[in-house]
Amino acid sequence: MITGKNYIGSQLKDSNNQITFRTFDPVANSENDWVFYEATEDEINEACRLALMSFKEFQNTSDQIRAQFLRDIADNIEVLGETLLEVYQKESGLDLVRARAERARTTYQLRMFADFIETSGWRGDSFEVAEPNRSPNPKPSLFKTYLPIGPIAVFGASNFPFAYSTAGGDTASAFAAGCPVIVKSHPMHAGTGEMVASAISNAVIKNNLPKGIFSNLNAQGYQVGAALVSHPMVKGVGFTGSITGGRALLDISSKRPEPIPVFAEMGSVNPVVVSNGALQENMKQWVQSYADSITNGTGQFCTNPGLIMGLEGLQLNEFISELSKEIDSRKNTVMLNPSIANSFKKLRNDVLSQQDVKQESTNASDNVNYGIQTIASVSGKAFIENPKLHHEVFGPFSLVVKCKDLVELEQTISSLEGQLTATLIATSNEFREFESVISTLSNKVGRIVYNGVPTGVEVTQAMTHGGPFPASTDSRFTAVGTDSIKRWLRPITFQNFPKELLPSGLVRM
Amino acid sequence: MITGKNYIGSQLKDSNNQITFRTFDPVANSENDWVFYEATEDEINEACRLALMSFKEFQNTSDQIRAQFLRDIADNIEVLGETLLEVYQKESGLDLVRARAERARTTYQLRMFADFIETSGWRGDSFEVAEPNRSPNPKPSLFKTYLPIGPIAVFGASNFPFAYSTAGGDTASAFAAGCPVIVKSHPMHAGTGEMVASAISNAVIKNNLPKGIFSNLNAQGYQVGAALVSHPMVKGVGFTGSITGGRALLDISSKRPEPIPVFAEMGSVNPVVVSNGALQENMKQWVQSYADSITNGTGQFCTNPGLIMGLEGLQLNEFISELSKEIDSRKNTVMLNPSIANSFKKLRNDVLSQQDVKQESTNASDNVNYGIQTIASVSGKAFIENPKLHHEVFGPFSLVVKCKDLVELEQTISSLEGQLTATLIATSNEFREFESVISTLSNKVGRIVYNGVPTGVEVTQAMTHGGPFPASTDSRFTAVGTDSIKRWLRPITFQNFPKELLPSGLVRM
Repeated sequence: MITGKNYIGSQLKDSNNQITFRTFDPVANSENDWVFYEATEDEINEACRLALMSFKEFQNTSDQIRAQFLRDIADNIEVLGETLLEVYQKESGLDLVRARAERARTTYQLRMFADFIETSGWRGDSFEVAEPNRSPNPKPSLFKTYLPIGPIAVFGASNFPFAYSTAGGDTASAFAAGCPVIVKSHPMHAGTGEMVASAISNAVIKNNLPKGIFSNLNAQGYQVGAALVSHPMVKGVGFTGSITGGRALLDISSKRPEPIPVFAEMGSVNPVVVSNGALQENMKQWVQSYADSITNGTGQFCTNPGLIMGLEGLQLNEFISELSKEIDSRKNTVMLNPSIANSFKKLRNDVLSQQDVKQESTNASDNVNYGIQTIASVSGKAFIENPKLHHEVFGPFSLVVKCKDLVELEQTISSLEGQLTATLIATSNEFREFESVISTLSNKVGRIVYNGVPTGVEVTQAMTHGGPFPASTDSRFTAVGTDSIKRWLRPITFQNFPKELLPSGLVRM
Repeated sequence: MITGKNYIGSQLKDSNNQITFRTFDPVANSENDWVFYEATEDEINEACRLALMSFKEFQNTSDQIRAQFLRDIADNIEVLGETLLEVYQKESGLDLVRARAERARTTYQLRMFADFIETSGWRGDSFEVAEPNRSPNPKPSLFKTYLPIGPIAVFGASNFPFAYSTAGGDTASAFAAGCPVIVKSHPMHAGTGEMVASAISNAVIKNNLPKGIFSNLNAQGYQVGAALVSHPMVKGVGFTGSITGGRALLDISSKRPEPIPVFAEMGSVNPVVVSNGALQENMKQWVQSYADSITNGTGQFCTNPGLIMGLEGLQLNEFISELSKEIDSRKNTVMLNPSIANSFKKLRNDVLSQQDVKQESTNASDNVNYGIQTIASVSGKAFIENPKLHHEVFGPFSLVVKCKDLVELEQTISSLEGQLTATLIATSNEFREFESVISTLSNKVGRIVYNGVPTGVEVTQAMTHGGPFPASTDSRFTAVGTDSIKRWLRPITFQNFPKELLPSGLVRM
């Protein structure tokens, strides 16, 4: 069922590329059987050419046709059944419960965008009537609507083989907007990617859409992705992954003769501020919630709470000690891939070796692909002075910063770069004393949570999943929720066009 | 009244900079008396520091306070009266009628944004209630609103000393959003800029706003602007001007450790497609309208119709001949500045010297600062093959492309880069045969006009003034109209925040 080939214009193509690779099962600690053919330069060019050729026809499809297309993709993914979930697990080490939940999230996103683009007025079109008698000059009629920007290159994330990958939020929102999509398949789950690509391709064919609107390119290294982002026929980029990866794509785009929008959702330490009052009131609850939030999915979430800040005191010390105990009592769990496990351990040890940093949890693991859930602590002063402590440790790791007062707490926040989220845990009585903290936090983040955990990103209109650089490359957009479609649309104004003469694909009044 | 000094944090500062410059009166063909002091590195740093320091307070002001501030700026500009209009004329060569009209446009924009941010719900905030009983997980409440992105550097345009400069659309929209503004004053109208800066500074002081929210920096060369765009405390850029200038700022931003949004509205040739049917029906009207559109303001508009395309035929030939005659019958008019006049003549002569290009108008000018309104023609084939003909000739110049059929006409359009506007002149009978042309044009532009001229940009919600690169650096935004405020705002989601606990500056429900 998995061929290892590339989909070019919704069709599987034989490849004679000598560059091949396999995916890896971190639980079995062995390579999977399937062999994947890296996309060739010709295949990349052909995918881009077909995407641009199909654009005009695809952008003029009705919202209803694109909605049906999105629903068919969701249905086709479900039809792939248990086989798809097995491949997902063999390529990620994530368990069946997670596989099912993530598939549900993915099909939900596709159907959400289908419903959304069938909602009248979803683009926010506006119409202003002519005022022929206005003085000193008559006013022409103005009809403002939104057009898709063109073919989009989508880069999936290692940690969400379904929801932020082949048919994930970037692809769903781009298709909903009317943009062709070229997926740079993630090398860690290329088999999952190919199966989901078959679901998309079958939906393209069933709906008689131009085949060029979808391609899925295998790639082990960075070359295929770099070629896509620099390709003149690609007009936008969606990326989820590391700061290094997202920044590299942004830099490629900015060297193009025609720079294009690159929306990269990147790393974050997701600072959490805990008050001693809240800890005193609900110590057990916060210990449990944060042990879950730090270790679920082996901590491999971009919203993982990697940094917890509080004021020095008995409650904070007790929280650190209880949280460490709770975390130590849990089993080590597998990470996505040996390279991610190695990177986690290296970054974790880097932090633990810094001056003033104290390891609080004690569990270890001798399994090469497993995470070691870890709590460490450090003083506010040491944290502020050492930028090495400010970076994400992707995995089940959280550093607790003990600040000596509110001033140092604010300085700690101010020393941080942009973040996806921040969280404040406080009683409503204490809230006013944290007013300035909230204001400072809100200038750093895309989402701020009160008395909760940062993990768990609702897929809905009011969500913001993004934030000031380096949380994302453009804080004015979101990667999740219906507003994520705005990344792929641009306004256009039709001036003095009689309604009955507006181009047929654009008549939406 | 004009001191030549810089406003740093709304206050005129003595400068000991050795680098000084003067502005130029193109009508008198002589330098103006005022001496301007280029901003020093210290002054730039101080302006940026004050801007960032004032940000938190300014962003938390109520919409009503910022609205009053904008109205006071407009009032203060009017109070400057005839003196301001005289300085404007002496620094631009533009006449009194234009000066009055542009001042009215500028104060209109300021008051429009004041009204806009007093409209309830202008940000598009949304609120989703919690669903504590949702299965499998409860849904938290989500309140999505928009925050200003931080201090904005504004670069004014040479050709609009009021409306796209010191207190122009970029400044008005940034202040309306709650962003501090640092203006890099245009060296050609530094005196006009200083006077308008005084109007802004007085409004800052009257409204007890933090003084750091406004600075006005004199600069003859590019260094001050480059320092601003690379400054870590600047978080966004608004620019109106040439492709070279806008691209340079974008390149500086993309090399920052933290890239920032750069919205540059740049060049455009604003292609116009004329049908022979429409010419037959209304030859005289189109000759008059286009002679006006090409020569008004000595053609110094970014929406000037620099390229006219039609199908070979008697009507097109007659149009070329009548338009050339009409243009020849008009007086030469002065350009903004000797350097702009020289650049116009150089670019004009470059085009006229290209193979197959025929000069159609015959008027000339021996006045060094004056334009020479010019019509030229070329075949579709020669145009498509020669990219040198695709670039803007800033000034009263239009090149007519004679295409042999609709296929060549579409190829001509496809050969163009992104544009601010396109125009179709056709009868309603012919409209259907131009359907594909319209679709091709619409993928190139931010605005498309039917039976009109591209000059004249309405300041209103339904306007799009921007377009695919290089018309702008980001086609998803507009430089004109209320939506231009979106350039300076980013979404943020407050999760699980009880309404009564939302930070006071943000409570808008």
